[in-house]
Amino acid sequence: MVLLIHHSTSPQSRKARLIMAEKKMLFVLQEEEPWNLSEKAKQINPAQDLPILVFDGNVISGNYAITEYLEESNPQYKLLPEAPKDRAEVRRIMDWFDIKFHNEVYKYIVAEKIIKRFHLKEAPNSRILKAGLNNLKYHMEYVEYLTDRYKYIVGNDLTLADFTVAAHLSILDYLGDIPWDEYKNAKLWYAKIKSRPSFRDILKDTIRGIPPSSNYTNLDF
Amino acid sequence: MVLLIHHSTSPQSRKARLIMAEKKMLFVLQEEEPWNLSEKAKQINPAQDLPILVFDGNVISGNYAITEYLEESNPQYKLLPEAPKDRAEVRRIMDWFDIKFHNEVYKYIVAEKIIKRFHLKEAPNSRILKAGLNNLKYHMEYVEYLTDRYKYIVGNDLTLADFTVAAHLSILDYLGDIPWDEYKNAKLWYAKIKSRPSFRDILKDTIRGIPPSSNYTNLDF
Repeated sequence: MVLLIHHSTSPQSRKARLIMAEKKMLFVLQEEEPWNLSEKAKQINPAQDLPILVFDGNVISGNYAITEYLEESNPQYKLLPEAPKDRAEVRRIMDWFDIKFHNEVYKYIVAEKIIKRFHLKEAPNSRILKAGLNNLKYHMEYVEYLTDRYKYIVGNDLTLADFTVAAHLSILDYLGDIPWDEYKNAKLWYAKIKSRPSFRDILKDTIRGIPPSSNYTNLDF
Repeated sequence: MVLLIHHSTSPQSRKARLIMAEKKMLFVLQEEEPWNLSEKAKQINPAQDLPILVFDGNVISGNYAITEYLEESNPQYKLLPEAPKDRAEVRRIMDWFDIKFHNEVYKYIVAEKIIKRFHLKEAPNSRILKAGLNNLKYHMEYVEYLTDRYKYIVGNDLTLADFTVAAHLSILDYLGDIPWDEYKNAKLWYAKIKSRPSFRDILKDTIRGIPPSSNYTNLDF
């Protein structure tokens, strides 16, 4: 049995859950607030971030390490294409969302609305929120461009890139910050991903004190 | 022939150069300032960052994509161990330096001393520099801990982790910001990496307007 220490507000945690569910792995979840990690979590992951994967006395931490580990150790459900060049494209998109989107959108919107509120007990700064929403437009235009080309983010097959992008967008969607009607292709693509059985558990997530947007659980939004 | 569009101040560019040299690949370098990318570079890499790998009409960008591509397409010189768990440890360390170290040290020191100076024509902020040097201590203690365990960063074999950590530290070393004498194991390890033929080209790097520290090219520092 695999244990994932996670939090609903962590896109990297959502990504790991989606990948494990797609790969039909059995796992249990243990929630910890990233801003208030237990001593045990801090001890097993010196980087002190989420998610953390624990199994048979082993610990794997770090988003990049966990993603590749899940792919390598469950080859029966492949989420990376075969050709090195195509694999590179999947990883380029993952990097984009895990780093660029994270720095330009997550840190402005999710950190302001949720982490600042619960961790620092401060109200969000509207100037920072506005900058984040502005950055979100640029990233949504990129998702719109990507989903205009093929059936999925990197081609006509589902890959790790789809679950990475969807994991990041799902938190913004929970907060009601994505104007889906302005991004037709992105919306069609997200509806496809959201309808997968692997997404069911994500749609049940709740973030303490913040109800999900009316769109969040709706498969036909 | 492979072309790497890079810059001396980009740790991810240094890492790609080291990996390619270790894998005995033939490549040519083309320098571009990250704060002043050419229209062509912006066009081939929508994330607008460095490095960018160009070969046979293909473009691979993004640090994560480039690193894994170089490893997958040159399997004769392996820099990732065989066991999934060991591979995860190498990737955990890469994540640590490419993200955590980058956010906590590079953005405070290198960005202040070099990028701010040339891009924004502003003097570095001494408060930010001080915070960065303080963060550097914590990361150097971690390198000291890692290098106390085995011959290399993740075991007794050289891996991508060694070249990632060395790439990041080498820029701080260029600036003279690493008090090596306080970190005995880290120093011994870095001297080993620095002495490798793959590092020669890195030691010839110069950053416009900033001479290297007296330690930088010295193999017996």
